[in-house]
Amino acid sequence: MLRTHTCGELNIANSGNEVTLCGWVQRTRNLGGMVFIDLRDRYGIIQLVLNPSENNPDEKPSAIFEKAQSLGREFVIQVKGIVVERSNKNANLSTGEIEIQAFEINILNPSVTPPFTIEDVTDGGEELRMQYRYLDLRRNPLKKNLELRHRVTIETRKYLDSISFIEIETPFLIKSTPEGARDFVVPSRVHPKQFYALPQSPQTFKQILMVSGYDRYFQIVRCFRDEDLRADRQPEFTQIDCEMAFIEQDDILNTFEGLTKHLFKNIKGIDLGDFPRMSYGDAMKNYGCDKPDTRFEMKFIELKSPRPEGKGNIPFSETLGGPGFKAFDESEMVVGICAKGCANYSRKQLDELTEFVKRPQIGAKGLVYVKYHEDGTIKSSVDKFFNESILKKWADLFYAGPGDLMLILAGGKNQTHKALSELRLEMGNQLGLRKPEVFSPLWVYDFPLLEWNEMSQRWFAMHHPFTSPKKEDFHLLDTPNLSGLRANAYDLVINGVELGGGSIRIHNKELQQKMFKILGFSEAEAMRQFGFLMNAFEYGAPPHGGIAFGLDRLCATFGGSESIRDYIAFPKNNAARDIMIDAPSEISPEQLKELGL
Amino acid sequence: MLRTHTCGELNIANSGNEVTLCGWVQRTRNLGGMVFIDLRDRYGIIQLVLNPSENNPDEKPSAIFEKAQSLGREFVIQVKGIVVERSNKNANLSTGEIEIQAFEINILNPSVTPPFTIEDVTDGGEELRMQYRYLDLRRNPLKKNLELRHRVTIETRKYLDSISFIEIETPFLIKSTPEGARDFVVPSRVHPKQFYALPQSPQTFKQILMVSGYDRYFQIVRCFRDEDLRADRQPEFTQIDCEMAFIEQDDILNTFEGLTKHLFKNIKGIDLGDFPRMSYGDAMKNYGCDKPDTRFEMKFIELKSPRPEGKGNIPFSETLGGPGFKAFDESEMVVGICAKGCANYSRKQLDELTEFVKRPQIGAKGLVYVKYHEDGTIKSSVDKFFNESILKKWADLFYAGPGDLMLILAGGKNQTHKALSELRLEMGNQLGLRKPEVFSPLWVYDFPLLEWNEMSQRWFAMHHPFTSPKKEDFHLLDTPNLSGLRANAYDLVINGVELGGGSIRIHNKELQQKMFKILGFSEAEAMRQFGFLMNAFEYGAPPHGGIAFGLDRLCATFGGSESIRDYIAFPKNNAARDIMIDAPSEISPEQLKELGL
Repeated sequence: MLRTHTCGELNIANSGNEVTLCGWVQRTRNLGGMVFIDLRDRYGIIQLVLNPSENNPDEKPSAIFEKAQSLGREFVIQVKGIVVERSNKNANLSTGEIEIQAFEINILNPSVTPPFTIEDVTDGGEELRMQYRYLDLRRNPLKKNLELRHRVTIETRKYLDSISFIEIETPFLIKSTPEGARDFVVPSRVHPKQFYALPQSPQTFKQILMVSGYDRYFQIVRCFRDEDLRADRQPEFTQIDCEMAFIEQDDILNTFEGLTKHLFKNIKGIDLGDFPRMSYGDAMKNYGCDKPDTRFEMKFIELKSPRPEGKGNIPFSETLGGPGFKAFDESEMVVGICAKGCANYSRKQLDELTEFVKRPQIGAKGLVYVKYHEDGTIKSSVDKFFNESILKKWADLFYAGPGDLMLILAGGKNQTHKALSELRLEMGNQLGLRKPEVFSPLWVYDFPLLEWNEMSQRWFAMHHPFTSPKKEDFHLLDTPNLSGLRANAYDLVINGVELGGGSIRIHNKELQQKMFKILGFSEAEAMRQFGFLMNAFEYGAPPHGGIAFGLDRLCATFGGSESIRDYIAFPKNNAARDIMIDAPSEISPEQLKELGL
Repeated sequence: MLRTHTCGELNIANSGNEVTLCGWVQRTRNLGGMVFIDLRDRYGIIQLVLNPSENNPDEKPSAIFEKAQSLGREFVIQVKGIVVERSNKNANLSTGEIEIQAFEINILNPSVTPPFTIEDVTDGGEELRMQYRYLDLRRNPLKKNLELRHRVTIETRKYLDSISFIEIETPFLIKSTPEGARDFVVPSRVHPKQFYALPQSPQTFKQILMVSGYDRYFQIVRCFRDEDLRADRQPEFTQIDCEMAFIEQDDILNTFEGLTKHLFKNIKGIDLGDFPRMSYGDAMKNYGCDKPDTRFEMKFIELKSPRPEGKGNIPFSETLGGPGFKAFDESEMVVGICAKGCANYSRKQLDELTEFVKRPQIGAKGLVYVKYHEDGTIKSSVDKFFNESILKKWADLFYAGPGDLMLILAGGKNQTHKALSELRLEMGNQLGLRKPEVFSPLWVYDFPLLEWNEMSQRWFAMHHPFTSPKKEDFHLLDTPNLSGLRANAYDLVINGVELGGGSIRIHNKELQQKMFKILGFSEAEAMRQFGFLMNAFEYGAPPHGGIAFGLDRLCATFGGSESIRDYIAFPKNNAARDIMIDAPSEISPEQLKELGL
């Protein structure tokens, strides 16, 4: 080793020791004729000190002093010296009680001046930091993120191994089955005109492993989706992919609630209680969203509820007092939330909230507010249409008291759910209810099995084509009421972020064939793409199900961040490019020719 | 859970318990009016017993008895019953002291008849087993292999984590840099005419991570090579990939010797002593091979040594007694081994050995033998050319005594090394010296840096272009004597199998540029492909080096097998096809169009 110790591990107990350290020059300072150097490595920072006349009675600066003065930022050096107690201690640093009196410095490699500062808060823009990712990765925040990610995978494996899960690697060069997102494909050189595909997930392989009897499988595995990128998506991402046999839905939920608790306990020192569970229907009714942030309540209150499909608008309730206000009269639903203690919101604040819900990506037509003032009076934006006694009834419904603000939207069900859900999150932000150090998990279950797609005029699987309908709903499979089919599917949501999702799978060939038919596959196409799985079901396939967690997002949530990119060592940018290495790029004509392209 | 216990975990202590089990029907037998069923799951096999008249006083077979008789091989069933002691115990089974008196059987899924038997030794051919891999994976030997593989990765991570290594995931969609093997490429849809490549290894990324200060990195990671396949190669394979900074070669060797010892100790219960280390030169001289099987000695003895390049043939040694035997006279080298106790080999056996070395893939022209009989007489195939006193001198050189057989080859150096190395392994086999339960590790170091390729008339890196020459040999870089350059490169060999290899890397831009020039890169091409790495070297790159282990081969070696395919859940066949899922295959015209192909 070129060193005896790392920069982070020394402390007052090492006083008097002779040590050799290696690291990067964080900064140098010349104070009162002495040179101080902060030396950094992965484990910490330590101060080196050089006295111009050390061992040098004629008081001309020594050679090592001259060398120390010449060191630039990010030079890599090796230092020999003695650990001594500092007179001027730094309590912010684990090594702050000591410093190294250096007597030898070797420059292992110089550095040109970095294009941005290597500090916790840097002056580099995102594009520049992506290009020089190797310098950005030296910064403490990114280092902590990668260390967290390592710890999450170590603890995940430890826990799953301890309960008899076995990690099995599945192939990356598989077959293209572009149901759902687009596949990345890989041309075969040996088999002209044929292609492999990179897996969007190991779904069919993990089901095959259940058929093979490996009743508790997991894998931390890269997956690929050729999507048009959004800010928080990456063309390659990592999944904690799991599957179990001889289980029912509750067994999966209990097992992976156990994993999640283990991770929070062992990595963050947080004891999460038992996770609440909520049906998809209730989540939509209460929060307008299948991944609600349950760090705070602020549930939806319906003044006018949508009627079940095909039944026309619901009659006016007592609380709306009959027709009169057109925006409510003509809407499928009227629904609101109660923001505690916000009755004193100014005109400007309310206008801003109105602008917020009217933004195109949210799309509400307007916002109705009702202020329940501290003095008991009520003031609203719809005073012309509703008298105080009706507004008081609203307050009762909303559990609103003096000082509270009611915010109400009206419109079509789906769009109003979405808009009010966004408004609820915004109010949560404004009221400081979304605390990064609080973690609120929730299981959401009983998702719809199918979604109708207007564009392509066909049903799509909401989860994927292998998800089993609920037994109670099997009879609907042969009726036109396919939208009523519920799936044995579930998501784990923490703080409004979907961290994982899964389902109980179909394990019967006929049911799987029926599902492909509903999804618009011809029998031949279903067999061509998934014949191996359906054939496998004929050889004694056990009941099984599973779940997959997005590791990138899991780590970001652990770290209290919304950006997954900061938890990936070498992410791609929004155009799916790696700008550090410049990929994708052109390949040589010889390569193209060999591949027959 | 659909079960209370697994089939493998019950024993005599559970007698009297009511249990619910799930599993596959291994076999059913009808003996003396009773039905016996062997029920199998991942954890073991247990016997179920059904009495026709149980709870059935009128002695007509009960419904459950009828159902039990109807069960076919590989049906998946759920069984409820009582654990009882067996009268007829089976000591070969962990559950052999008990059986389950079943009172309820539910068929979870029937099975058609499997195309081969699910037994330790099966009647299925390889092609059939690959097609029905999900059935093959049910067999015990494959299950044990995958469990071993899981254990190897768990223990590898545990050990490396305990000594501060951090696992960091590197990207799969990278840039094509086809030095060495061919890349698999991935067309980009968003960037027409551009391609990603799948990594042959994370080499440049792990070096970048060293530049970033993550001084102990590892990753268990899939790698890809589009090679023309040989029997033991796969287009995708898994590496334990490692890199360290601020180290020298010995530190890498010590660290990963530690890992290897940990794996053998914790997985196989074997204490490996300290690993011998041997230079490449000595390995070639002693064994004619850079990955010798050192479970047995049988070192090469040279009767006539090749002279250093360009110096012509070496003069005859005293032991050859001057010219006379043309095959020796005209050969660059004459070299042999001593097979202890084989002087009694028959004419037929010796003819077979001669045929063995003359096979085209070995390519020797003939084989000289010298038998040192028990009675002290010597008989050889070259009696005409060498008298007994000379043959006795050979015996002295070979440390041969009465009863031993000397086997001698002559020819060009490289080809004779290769042929005698194969013959040595064959003699090791014949003498039972290559015991599967013995593990003999060896570090081989000081590999040549470069290899001259006659075909393309240029130098190739023996390891890869990032390997550092030895400091002592730096001066040779500017001379024509490039073949004399030694690399700071090393391999870990166990039982003649190369399990891992690595090197100390170049960490200096100028040296890296010089290396690319030697390898025939133009400056522009080197910058286009590897500019990001060379630029990174300018920002304070620390001295670093690493190693990578082939996980598939490591597991096979652990398992005492030569076939890596049995240690991969879903391998490809020799034509790089996955015949279970039928990949690669054609993709739709729409996909091709979107990709601009």
